[in-house]
Amino acid sequence: MAHTHSTELRVRYAETDRMGVVYYANYLVWCEVGRVEFLRALGRSYATLEHGGTGLAVSEATVRYLAPARFDDLVRVTTTLIGVRSRAVTFDYLITHAESGVRLATAHTALVSIDRDGRLAAIPSEFRAALAAVL
Amino acid sequence: MAHTHSTELRVRYAETDRMGVVYYANYLVWCEVGRVEFLRALGRSYATLEHGGTGLAVSEATVRYLAPARFDDLVRVTTTLIGVRSRAVTFDYLITHAESGVRLATAHTALVSIDRDGRLAAIPSEFRAALAAVL
Amino acid sequence: MAHTHSTELRVRYAETDRMGVVYYANYLVWCEVGRVEFLRALGRSYATLEHGGTGLAVSEATVRYLAPARFDDLVRVTTTLIGVRSRAVTFDYLITHAESGVRLATAHTALVSIDRDGRLAAIPSEFRAALAAVL
Amino acid sequence: MAHTHSTELRVRYAETDRMGVVYYANYLVWCEVGRVEFLRALGRSYATLEHGGTGLAVSEATVRYLAPARFDDLVRVTTTLIGVRSRAVTFDYLITHAESGVRLATAHTALVSIDRDGRLAAIPSEFRAALAAVL
Repeated sequence: MAHTHSTELRVRYAETDRMGVVYYANYLVWCEVGRVEFLRALGRSYATLEHGGTGLAVSEATVRYLAPARFDDLVRVTTTLIGVRSRAVTFDYLITHAESGVRLATAHTALVSIDRDGRLAAIPSEFRAALAAVL
Repeated sequence: MAHTHSTELRVRYAETDRMGVVYYANYLVWCEVGRVEFLRALGRSYATLEHGGTGLAVSEATVRYLAPARFDDLVRVTTTLIGVRSRAVTFDYLITHAESGVRLATAHTALVSIDRDGRLAAIPSEFRAALAAVL
Repeated sequence: MAHTHSTELRVRYAETDRMGVVYYANYLVWCEVGRVEFLRALGRSYATLEHGGTGLAVSEATVRYLAPARFDDLVRVTTTLIGVRSRAVTFDYLITHAESGVRLATAHTALVSIDRDGRLAAIPSEFRAALAAVL
Repeated sequence: MAHTHSTELRVRYAETDRMGVVYYANYLVWCEVGRVEFLRALGRSYATLEHGGTGLAVSEATVRYLAPARFDDLVRVTTTLIGVRSRAVTFDYLITHAESGVRLATAHTALVSIDRDGRLAAIPSEFRAALAAVL
């Protein structure tokens, strides 16, 4: 696979707000879904990484909102691995309406790897290599 | 204090949905706030209980929705301790509009005490006694 | 189709809490997903129903929690239509671990049909007939 | 009042995730609480603005996560009005642990004013003037 992966999700009623569109914080939930599925497509499981004692904590997140997503829309989250270092990973996201292709949002997250106590710790080398291989 | 405690909260935009009212699952979040504040008013901390190795997991929840709560409403959650046993606690909740007094919902939850591995375990006797004392 | 429909979803990190399992209110979100997909399988769209001016508001919800769902679990929500009346619909839900079949929760919701102003209103007859036809 | 306002909130169990800390998207919910309370302190109600036909939709959001917030922490959200234009408002946020003063996160949001149909529309002049007066 390339260093980009797309996954689709259906907008839930729970994700909307009284403006009739998806509440802005929920795009970050979709980014989480995007990067978990990115890793799965790469043969990696974020759950397994955590069970092994390494977590990836978001250190910075940015979202640019371009057009509203609405209840029952089929949304596509395209996740791109941007960089991997010993203790950090960065991803970009493009969120589009799956049927029309309309761009709904772009996002960027930086994550740092931490141990069970929340301290910075190196990403396991084998996991890091798997990411680096597709960059 | 008696076995009833009230706390107030302001409805967040995030809690509404496209129907213009609070999404139905969020009333259970307010019940959580209600019982945490109930315990605090009793001089107990749910956080401390968990740090000590005992969690209270919800085993059953029921909500009856009477009138919609809306963005920016001031809502009152009145929590009543109904019963305490060696491994179970039950609470009732009345959710009202704080200013008008209109009843928005009633709820009931049963919780069971578990250890760090998620197995049923007795509520620490001192904690249980504090609850039983106000019944 | 019969009056039962199953859909699957992957547990999101956002849906877990510090107990390491899915937060109890989120099962109601999954019930929402279940009934929206139930209607879609029947050739009906809840979004279309709402655009036509009729909403279905939950009037009562009950969940029994049997075993915890965890991050990244594949979960199956089986939704069963229990009853339809002129202004009310009831559903039952069985939530299981998709791979092991372990029962995670059962739930029940009663919904009432309302107009754009939130007043009780009859379910459009054609929509009601489609539901009644599979009972 | 100055162009900065602080409000406090108690971290809910619902806001945590299995890493034992607050899920990253929820900081944006706290920013929403911060700016609604900022407006209230200024004698303005966001709810009233919306009832009048003008919404403020987030067009860009950035969060930098410095230290984790945990269940039951008392958190302070300090909201600062950065700029007001005819159709846009920007805020900065500082989120701290209320008791220790530890900085948990900083955030920035840009909002655009829209009408009921989601189209860009001028902020009502009287509302805009009230904001501009404290800049």
